[in-house]
Amino acid sequence: MATLEDIGVSAFINILGAFAFLLAFALLRIQPINDRVYFPKWYISGGRTSPKRSRNFVGKFVNLDLKTYLTFLNWMPQAMKMSEEEIINHAGLDSAVFLRIYILGLKIFGPIAIVALLVLIPVNVSGGTLFFLSKELVVSDIDKLSISNVRPNSIRFFVHISMEYLFTFWICYLLYKEYDRVASMRLNFMASQRRRAEQFTVLVRNVPHVSGRSISDSVDNFFQTNHPDHYLCHQAVYNANKFAKLMRKRERLQNWLDYYQLKYERHPEKKPTSKNGFLGLWGESVDSIEFYKQQLKELDKRLAMERQRILKDPKSIMPAAFVSFKSRWGAAVCAQTQQSKNPTLWLTNWAPEPRDVYWKNLAIPFVSLSIRKLVISLSVFALVFFYMIPIAFVQSLANLEGLERVAPFLRPLIELNFIKSFLQGFLPGLALKIFLYILPTVLLIMSKIEGHAALSVLERRAAAKYYYFMLVNVFLGSIVTGTAFQQLHSFLHQSATEIPRTIGVSIPMKATFFITYIMVDGWAGIASEILRLKPLVIFHLKNLFLVKTERDRERAMDPGSVDFPETLPSLQLYFLLGIVYAVITPILLPFILVFFAFAYFIYRHQIINVYNQQYESVAAFWPHVHSRIIASLLISQLLLMGLLSTKKAANSTPLLVVLPVLTLSFHKYCKNRFEPAFRKYPLEEAMAKDTQEHASEPDLNLKSYLADAYLHPIFHSFEDVELTEVGVDKNQTQLPSPPASEPSSPSPPHYAYDYEDEPQQNVQNYQVEPPHNVYQYSFESPHNVYRYDIESPPNVYHY
Amino acid sequence: MATLEDIGVSAFINILGAFAFLLAFALLRIQPINDRVYFPKWYISGGRTSPKRSRNFVGKFVNLDLKTYLTFLNWMPQAMKMSEEEIINHAGLDSAVFLRIYILGLKIFGPIAIVALLVLIPVNVSGGTLFFLSKELVVSDIDKLSISNVRPNSIRFFVHISMEYLFTFWICYLLYKEYDRVASMRLNFMASQRRRAEQFTVLVRNVPHVSGRSISDSVDNFFQTNHPDHYLCHQAVYNANKFAKLMRKRERLQNWLDYYQLKYERHPEKKPTSKNGFLGLWGESVDSIEFYKQQLKELDKRLAMERQRILKDPKSIMPAAFVSFKSRWGAAVCAQTQQSKNPTLWLTNWAPEPRDVYWKNLAIPFVSLSIRKLVISLSVFALVFFYMIPIAFVQSLANLEGLERVAPFLRPLIELNFIKSFLQGFLPGLALKIFLYILPTVLLIMSKIEGHAALSVLERRAAAKYYYFMLVNVFLGSIVTGTAFQQLHSFLHQSATEIPRTIGVSIPMKATFFITYIMVDGWAGIASEILRLKPLVIFHLKNLFLVKTERDRERAMDPGSVDFPETLPSLQLYFLLGIVYAVITPILLPFILVFFAFAYFIYRHQIINVYNQQYESVAAFWPHVHSRIIASLLISQLLLMGLLSTKKAANSTPLLVVLPVLTLSFHKYCKNRFEPAFRKYPLEEAMAKDTQEHASEPDLNLKSYLADAYLHPIFHSFEDVELTEVGVDKNQTQLPSPPASEPSSPSPPHYAYDYEDEPQQNVQNYQVEPPHNVYQYSFESPHNVYRYDIESPPNVYHY
Repeated sequence: MATLEDIGVSAFINILGAFAFLLAFALLRIQPINDRVYFPKWYISGGRTSPKRSRNFVGKFVNLDLKTYLTFLNWMPQAMKMSEEEIINHAGLDSAVFLRIYILGLKIFGPIAIVALLVLIPVNVSGGTLFFLSKELVVSDIDKLSISNVRPNSIRFFVHISMEYLFTFWICYLLYKEYDRVASMRLNFMASQRRRAEQFTVLVRNVPHVSGRSISDSVDNFFQTNHPDHYLCHQAVYNANKFAKLMRKRERLQNWLDYYQLKYERHPEKKPTSKNGFLGLWGESVDSIEFYKQQLKELDKRLAMERQRILKDPKSIMPAAFVSFKSRWGAAVCAQTQQSKNPTLWLTNWAPEPRDVYWKNLAIPFVSLSIRKLVISLSVFALVFFYMIPIAFVQSLANLEGLERVAPFLRPLIELNFIKSFLQGFLPGLALKIFLYILPTVLLIMSKIEGHAALSVLERRAAAKYYYFMLVNVFLGSIVTGTAFQQLHSFLHQSATEIPRTIGVSIPMKATFFITYIMVDGWAGIASEILRLKPLVIFHLKNLFLVKTERDRERAMDPGSVDFPETLPSLQLYFLLGIVYAVITPILLPFILVFFAFAYFIYRHQIINVYNQQYESVAAFWPHVHSRIIASLLISQLLLMGLLSTKKAANSTPLLVVLPVLTLSFHKYCKNRFEPAFRKYPLEEAMAKDTQEHASEPDLNLKSYLADAYLHPIFHSFEDVELTEVGVDKNQTQLPSPPASEPSSPSPPHYAYDYEDEPQQNVQNYQVEPPHNVYQYSFESPHNVYRYDIESPPNVYHY
Repeated sequence: MATLEDIGVSAFINILGAFAFLLAFALLRIQPINDRVYFPKWYISGGRTSPKRSRNFVGKFVNLDLKTYLTFLNWMPQAMKMSEEEIINHAGLDSAVFLRIYILGLKIFGPIAIVALLVLIPVNVSGGTLFFLSKELVVSDIDKLSISNVRPNSIRFFVHISMEYLFTFWICYLLYKEYDRVASMRLNFMASQRRRAEQFTVLVRNVPHVSGRSISDSVDNFFQTNHPDHYLCHQAVYNANKFAKLMRKRERLQNWLDYYQLKYERHPEKKPTSKNGFLGLWGESVDSIEFYKQQLKELDKRLAMERQRILKDPKSIMPAAFVSFKSRWGAAVCAQTQQSKNPTLWLTNWAPEPRDVYWKNLAIPFVSLSIRKLVISLSVFALVFFYMIPIAFVQSLANLEGLERVAPFLRPLIELNFIKSFLQGFLPGLALKIFLYILPTVLLIMSKIEGHAALSVLERRAAAKYYYFMLVNVFLGSIVTGTAFQQLHSFLHQSATEIPRTIGVSIPMKATFFITYIMVDGWAGIASEILRLKPLVIFHLKNLFLVKTERDRERAMDPGSVDFPETLPSLQLYFLLGIVYAVITPILLPFILVFFAFAYFIYRHQIINVYNQQYESVAAFWPHVHSRIIASLLISQLLLMGLLSTKKAANSTPLLVVLPVLTLSFHKYCKNRFEPAFRKYPLEEAMAKDTQEHASEPDLNLKSYLADAYLHPIFHSFEDVELTEVGVDKNQTQLPSPPASEPSSPSPPHYAYDYEDEPQQNVQNYQVEPPHNVYQYSFESPHNVYRYDIESPPNVYHY
């Protein structure tokens, strides 16, 4: 049991760590050479083109202005100066609403902390058993401030119960207000957006195969029949996975070519050579530049052939299509209604943003989707509850006795002192650490297998899985000893009333552990986020070896984005901790408040200066945030019931049993009241926007506007001739409109970056190689327009 | 423990009872005087107008043809002669699909019974403990045939497990086929229907109040803005509950007037008189006919005033409306989409059939609906688990000692022998019997309070509640001793693995009880259904006192309808029993088979000859039937797991745990695959039907067709002048179409029968006073058309 001093020491260490990170950040960020690491967002939004005021050669790389070193925390007020409106314009609604979660945390736990500390601490301290026992027994100081200190059967528990009521009502009130606010922000955002392709487009899946008719014909025919007044055109989806693979290979070769050309430029006296064998390790030595040029040429030939195959082979058209309508109203209608008698065919949904589409999953048939969902949910269950089994196995191999048993011949080696200590200190944790490190990636891959068609959905599903993992393994796992599997086993053999009791009893004892957890993970962990060590290193490595032109440097930048699959679940864990401990050990609340405030500053800074979101889901994650806070409320109520029943305050159960029922019905009400705003698009809105557009742009050629919005990214690298070949089915629709007036953008060779996030890649790659921002640069697709129309960055940002 | 002989005796008694009912039915039904009780459906459908071949005066009332007495079971083959197609035309899809449930039962349990009896009985009999113990211990013969007879730890349990697998797959296969069939029957039925008002109409609820604008204006304005190409007109909903009450009173007075006039006609020598005081019990003696005529006149004045008030007072227009569209496509779109930014306003749903509308619930606002749902679900929970508390209280009062304690002065009276025996035999059960008798009514009232807007939904919700009650109190209550409340208490204090074990162990022991239950409730109970004792008595009473004209006799008929709230849950209970006992005590299956076959005959006969459905929900109850059979499968799997774990066949659990997962995912698949057919109307269908209609009737005046389809029933009693007054807002819509060409039907005074099913009435009234069939007679509303277009009844029906 940790004493108050222990906590103090831990706090001191963690605050020190956090300050170290902040100091390092403050020093690194004002170096012009790091400008693209710490302010990439401004480069992308056009606010900057190169580090400012490079007076001399050294000044280009190192900041010589000593004055700036003195005010190393000045990013904090700067980060606060942007209003929410400006943040929405600058970084999108997702980011703005993400920041609101932290504010919500502060709003919830600020008043609760004050009330709880003022009311509950005196009640607990004065009331108790432990207070008098403390001289003899080793009891944590923290416990004296907690509910543990209250005598069983005491009338004081009614204070705790009334506090639980008060906090529940307060949290529900704030949640309601916030849901209302976010829902209206979402609708306002959608209403204020300029014309965007996804407003007119519906993703149709499971197009049935009719023999003797192409998919395109079927789609045209079906929608001309069933939406005669609204159907405009459609875009077929091509299976271009093989082509994308070749493009990735081409990109790799191009990188090597660039590298050798740069090397040659810098040292013209020495022609670079490489070996033409396996991995460049052996074989004949050849001129590198010539070699890679040759390779690229061959690859281009193969790419051209593959292109031809995709265009000619009807099998490469997948049974899915992006169907566009003449009005938002028509699209809203199609997205929300059932089209066909067989509800597993012609499935319609709003099309995700073009950037957000996960092309590979578009062709999964309905039956396969059901099976995938079943398999993945079983796997997630197994992962959450049984992940310790393989790890424990690896650990048992990895401990010293185990190793010696398995491989006795290693004994002399292992017995060496330094090797022994290294193994002992390192091995047992290694397997677990590797597992936890790759866990988000694994969960994202699982979500991909589940078959969702948009990146944003994939990330939300991964976040949900990660939340379950944290809930069981971090929260319950820390409270109840034993692995998740053992817990599951014991829960199955305990009665429904026994389980909350078992957990409830151990909750107060774990307060100190969670306080430490908050400081390590929440304080120091968040501080390390701002330093961006990995992007920093990678940027400089790339700068050294690959960058030739300013555009290459642009590409070497890695702005990253808010990592929803990881940050949302951990945020939700903090809400859970705060809500559960608010009544039981209120001393934990200030630590959580510090986390929310600190993280708010950091993420605000990052969102303004660094992150560049890959997609805009228009706050689609909010219902999840809301319902998980509600779940936390329910958990806290159940655990309090369990805890109080062991305190012989048995007559409290009927009092408390009302709360979960009220909370659940509040949740249901909110779901009905607000969730449709996140799932459907009201016809009233669609019609209003249509009317407004008709008035302002009566002779808009929508068809040409939509012509290549949902073109499979593969076609952006095709020549224009071929493009018209794909466009054939667009121009042959019933409306003989003029051919697309907006020519598809010419394709720079680097365009292939777009394929970086094919499913073979894992989530880490997202941070190393931002696929989409490059895309934004080389191609002014219509849906990016709103990113460009921020006014020049506010003047306050003098660096 | 019952022996085989006990079962035999019980079977004999019940079969005798069933035969008694059948015999009575056979004798009564061939009497011409009872023709309207046993063949009302044919009168309603126009197949008969009066009992046939009345050769002489006596022959009008009593059947003198002795030949017909000899073939008293000939209704059975007759009932089978109608094909399913004909039944659909004759009685609607609801009835036809209802009969399919019995066929499904036969299809499921027929093969299962054969396999189980052939495979499991030998395994059980040869295998066992009880077989050898039977000489010493009193063991039920039934138990020797059940799984109880197998030794613990025996390898034979794998036979049972594989049977459970086999049966599960068989049931799922049949369920899938049946769901598929019913869904396509539903779609075909809707496709083949002639034009019906509800195909074009959407019920809009929660119309917001805008100050300075009437509800009608709001509705017009909203839909003209948001559905400009499709909106046709709308029908306001008036709050006419007070008017309906007056109309009911008028109906009562009219009945009395008829009664006295008839009396006077029969005995012209004596003018009937009655007293004008309270309930006609005291006061001055006056001429009855004059008195009631006077009363009616006064009431008519009040009715006229009330009419005026409804028409003038804007507050009597409720915030709901029936909005009609120009095409089915437009209505389908509106019903399936979200209209307004605020998802709690402008809620759109398919309008129920005009007959099916439950007017009183149309005005409930969204918040109130949420609260009502919560309150009612809590009440249902309380009712299911705690209903024994008040009954036990009443019972404790009602037993003799209790009575004597409460009222010692009654002692001399109670001690009298015959009173004592009467009280002892009668009182304790009385409270429970009254409760069980009124339970369906109570549940229907609860569903009404929940706020559903259609009678069909009300009945389905009541059926769901009744199912929960049966599941807990009949099924679990018979297996685990103690009241439902005690069970709940013990379940809460048992672990999740312990509960199926507790129940599983006692399941085989209760087989004999359930066999008896099936015979009493399923065999004799169903046989009593065909006798229609209550309608028989009531018809003859009415005939005696009220009937003057042929039309009055028409009205005195009570065809009734399939009582879904009671029959569906009990059917589902039989499925549950069959599925649970199929593996455990297969000897129970033949009894269930007999029930299904027998009930099938009876209901087929009743549907063809008697019942007249009040509404047509187009088999909307099927998803409930399906999911409750799935639930039965899950329950049987869990209980088998529990049972086997006590038989020390512990290694069987992993084998069996796969089954619930598979069953659940099968259910999920079916839900996705078929349920939309019951909830939504595919646009493809709507468009096809629209196109077809446009081709066949290009100059249809839809507006006049829809003009009074959803007129509140109250207006059918208004004069034509006033009707145009209500119609004002229809003719003022943006389309200056000619005024409704089809004048609303003139209103016969008896029209007020329509108000019989106001919420104050309970479900019993539905059977005594069929409100809707009268309506069908006096008013050829468009939606009833399909009932009239059956060809003349098949010739085979000679009575």
